[in-house]
Amino acid sequence: MTYQPTPIRSDIAWSTPDRISVRGLDLPNEILGHFTLADFSFLQLTGRRPTAEQSRVYDALLITLVEHGLTPSALAARMTYAGAPESLQAAVAAGLCGLGSVFVGSTEGAARMLSDALADDDGSTDLEAAAESIVAGFRARKEPVPGIGHPFHKPVDPRAPRLFEIAAENGLSGRYVELVQLVAAAGGRAIGKDLPCNATGAIGALTCELGLPLRAVRGLGVMARAIGLVGHILEEGEQPMAVELWRRADDEASAHLRPE
Amino acid sequence: MTYQPTPIRSDIAWSTPDRISVRGLDLPNEILGHFTLADFSFLQLTGRRPTAEQSRVYDALLITLVEHGLTPSALAARMTYAGAPESLQAAVAAGLCGLGSVFVGSTEGAARMLSDALADDDGSTDLEAAAESIVAGFRARKEPVPGIGHPFHKPVDPRAPRLFEIAAENGLSGRYVELVQLVAAAGGRAIGKDLPCNATGAIGALTCELGLPLRAVRGLGVMARAIGLVGHILEEGEQPMAVELWRRADDEASAHLRPE
Amino acid sequence: MTYQPTPIRSDIAWSTPDRISVRGLDLPNEILGHFTLADFSFLQLTGRRPTAEQSRVYDALLITLVEHGLTPSALAARMTYAGAPESLQAAVAAGLCGLGSVFVGSTEGAARMLSDALADDDGSTDLEAAAESIVAGFRARKEPVPGIGHPFHKPVDPRAPRLFEIAAENGLSGRYVELVQLVAAAGGRAIGKDLPCNATGAIGALTCELGLPLRAVRGLGVMARAIGLVGHILEEGEQPMAVELWRRADDEASAHLRPE
Amino acid sequence: MTYQPTPIRSDIAWSTPDRISVRGLDLPNEILGHFTLADFSFLQLTGRRPTAEQSRVYDALLITLVEHGLTPSALAARMTYAGAPESLQAAVAAGLCGLGSVFVGSTEGAARMLSDALADDDGSTDLEAAAESIVAGFRARKEPVPGIGHPFHKPVDPRAPRLFEIAAENGLSGRYVELVQLVAAAGGRAIGKDLPCNATGAIGALTCELGLPLRAVRGLGVMARAIGLVGHILEEGEQPMAVELWRRADDEASAHLRPE
Repeated sequence: MTYQPTPIRSDIAWSTPDRISVRGLDLPNEILGHFTLADFSFLQLTGRRPTAEQSRVYDALLITLVEHGLTPSALAARMTYAGAPESLQAAVAAGLCGLGSVFVGSTEGAARMLSDALADDDGSTDLEAAAESIVAGFRARKEPVPGIGHPFHKPVDPRAPRLFEIAAENGLSGRYVELVQLVAAAGGRAIGKDLPCNATGAIGALTCELGLPLRAVRGLGVMARAIGLVGHILEEGEQPMAVELWRRADDEASAHLRPE
Repeated sequence: MTYQPTPIRSDIAWSTPDRISVRGLDLPNEILGHFTLADFSFLQLTGRRPTAEQSRVYDALLITLVEHGLTPSALAARMTYAGAPESLQAAVAAGLCGLGSVFVGSTEGAARMLSDALADDDGSTDLEAAAESIVAGFRARKEPVPGIGHPFHKPVDPRAPRLFEIAAENGLSGRYVELVQLVAAAGGRAIGKDLPCNATGAIGALTCELGLPLRAVRGLGVMARAIGLVGHILEEGEQPMAVELWRRADDEASAHLRPE
Repeated sequence: MTYQPTPIRSDIAWSTPDRISVRGLDLPNEILGHFTLADFSFLQLTGRRPTAEQSRVYDALLITLVEHGLTPSALAARMTYAGAPESLQAAVAAGLCGLGSVFVGSTEGAARMLSDALADDDGSTDLEAAAESIVAGFRARKEPVPGIGHPFHKPVDPRAPRLFEIAAENGLSGRYVELVQLVAAAGGRAIGKDLPCNATGAIGALTCELGLPLRAVRGLGVMARAIGLVGHILEEGEQPMAVELWRRADDEASAHLRPE
Repeated sequence: MTYQPTPIRSDIAWSTPDRISVRGLDLPNEILGHFTLADFSFLQLTGRRPTAEQSRVYDALLITLVEHGLTPSALAARMTYAGAPESLQAAVAAGLCGLGSVFVGSTEGAARMLSDALADDDGSTDLEAAAESIVAGFRARKEPVPGIGHPFHKPVDPRAPRLFEIAAENGLSGRYVELVQLVAAAGGRAIGKDLPCNATGAIGALTCELGLPLRAVRGLGVMARAIGLVGHILEEGEQPMAVELWRRADDEASAHLRPE
């Protein structure tokens, strides 16, 4: 009953004592000094080098995902660092663990909505009709339409129009960008108020324009946010708030239980 | 006995309904389209925008840390993804948790060694003598000198000379770079064989040349590796190996316990 | 535009300088020496102390979830420990991150299937018909029925009958236990081969018999597995395998890429 | 240059299609129904079954580590759950990541202090002198003595005397317990105020009395706290506070940066 092994295989990288190669390029001589970090990440994720236009849009999209202030994710990282300052990596990890369905992971929903709608598009899909149908579908399932409206950034999430502008300047304002804006318009009509496209919707559309695989979308948010979290952890080391927030929360939340 | 709060403060970012600002710059208008991801990460970590020369060195340094093949960190991420494919973020987090004292975190040791040695340097420190003293210190404590020699990449880790070349081309080959190479030479003399500076040593020196705070060094490895891990997880989704490695390991490791 | 706070509240624990109380009991005097760890965990999760019968079933159920050999979760923990031996806690965390929809988290699916079916049960539900309907539903959605059959443990997962036996001995073999076994029988009839109830199905049924909230079910697996992972990490410290598995995997997976 | 494998080995568990064995015992028939969860964890970690007396002390020690209110670890778990409610396991993992040198991990320091002092003890060590020497050593290194005094629980951490009482009732109040109390007395004399032994010190002493390996000590805190975190996450699901704490923190911390 000995186990019969099946071969395993990875096409990402290889090393010999004197060479290191990633995605078919020699790391020291063909990558270092020839790629920016973001372009290399595009290569690492897709096996392709982005064009100069794709590169500019991709940089903007990733930067948008890095930093959003004292989010739950930043707070989790700071709380963790306060307990284990010798393990900065674990503090980043703790902060990333919460990038799920509610926050950053929601870009995935927007990208899926758009790529599903245009999966068989040969350029003749009626985008107006597609947008109406998308909105009707979410309303029928009583689910919110991803990528439109924002609870705090009103009337317009200022990141979205700027991302669309950068896409247009680089020739990447295609049918996914058009569709997401039509979805926003249709969504707004359906409930009778303005629901402009937000950063999540813009990022979802741009990942489609860049031809990134759907499964990579959440990954973009995760790798970008890792940068933001390192910034928060460094600040926590110099200007701590975790212990203060703990004391406040513990004191307030159990006040009703404590004897006088 | 009510808790008396102390104010908390963060200087990284702020938002209002129509504006988002990071490190004093307007995110949509002054950052998006004007920064690369790496340059923005430099801003996020230090509050400063790198010069063009710093930027090129910083990109090279970060890229070096992204990908090293099927490391324990990549394998931990793949194992995690196999169990929770709906939580890509947790698979990245699991992979990052191991970037501690043994692997990626070791760049911190090299950076500390160099920055301690030149902490009070006014340009007159005798670097030869400093290198000898560093090596003697590690040998007295029976600890390995960080940043020199490599168990696999022989005779020379090909990343190190290339990183030094990029630093020189950009005017960033200063006293830290000189010192780490003198340390390598002194270490080699001490044991009578060649121990050239490795990627860890080069990265440690370059973080010092860039003026990055010591505590940021491990953070660079963590945020760079997050990119590499997303690549491995995407590949695992298409070309899985985690379940196969599990079956093999479980079968082999307990074979001596199982009845015939 | 200052934020208007809403009060927060937790009912789990409170402390004063001379007292610590958990779930309404004085920790030193009413809990320590009066509870086993598992019974205290039942209190922590539900606010209730289990009866002696519930306690025996709960212990068995939790123990079943602790250890399953060199699972992907155990391997992720060992890989992490190899890189960061100073952060045992992060190695356990890495191992837990993979307890999602594929492995341990699958007990949740079995529990949900059973609790949904008997949500309005007043004792008169026809369990045979309910089982047929459950199986028909999963087959219509082309999803596997949770909790029945096992790819390795054949013909019968030996944990399931033993868990049912312990439940019966303690008066906890009720309608959920009956239903899960009827589901297994119906599932087997549907595909014409034996698909006996497995450990996942038995645990799902027992969590229902114990009145545990559905959302707690995955939590049981997580907290039990934390114990198992500590065991693996301690063994990794004395008898390491992570580096060996890394070297093997890296060598094999990229062999097709490396030059001769 | 093909890699030459070295065999790997684990002595924890094995499975065949009809059997599962852990630490040499048949899981269904010799463990389930015959062990409590804590006793099984003792077996998993040490390979030994505890005596009835050890079992009672071990249960008390573990329970002490489960729950401490809204700690940074509990808050990190709640923050994570708010973003990824579909990944309860990742929320527990995030909470565990912070159990490092500052919080729970500190029990390791107390255990190490005691086991080092009595490493060669044949029963003739002068415990008074050993305690004085321990305190003098920490003071010379300007480090706090682990396990004594408490910033909040004054004059006495109520968990410590109760743990010592349970140890005494079970014949496990040996030389480690005596030593830690002498250390507390010596530490108090050194600074001229009362510094009674705290829960950390008591737990450190009891792990030594139980013969647990030093490397297991942090593991006890990690596995116990996993239980506590599941409790907090379940409460967060019903009575959330993470989003409220985020809004408050973000609003307050960046108020000085926002324009009027």
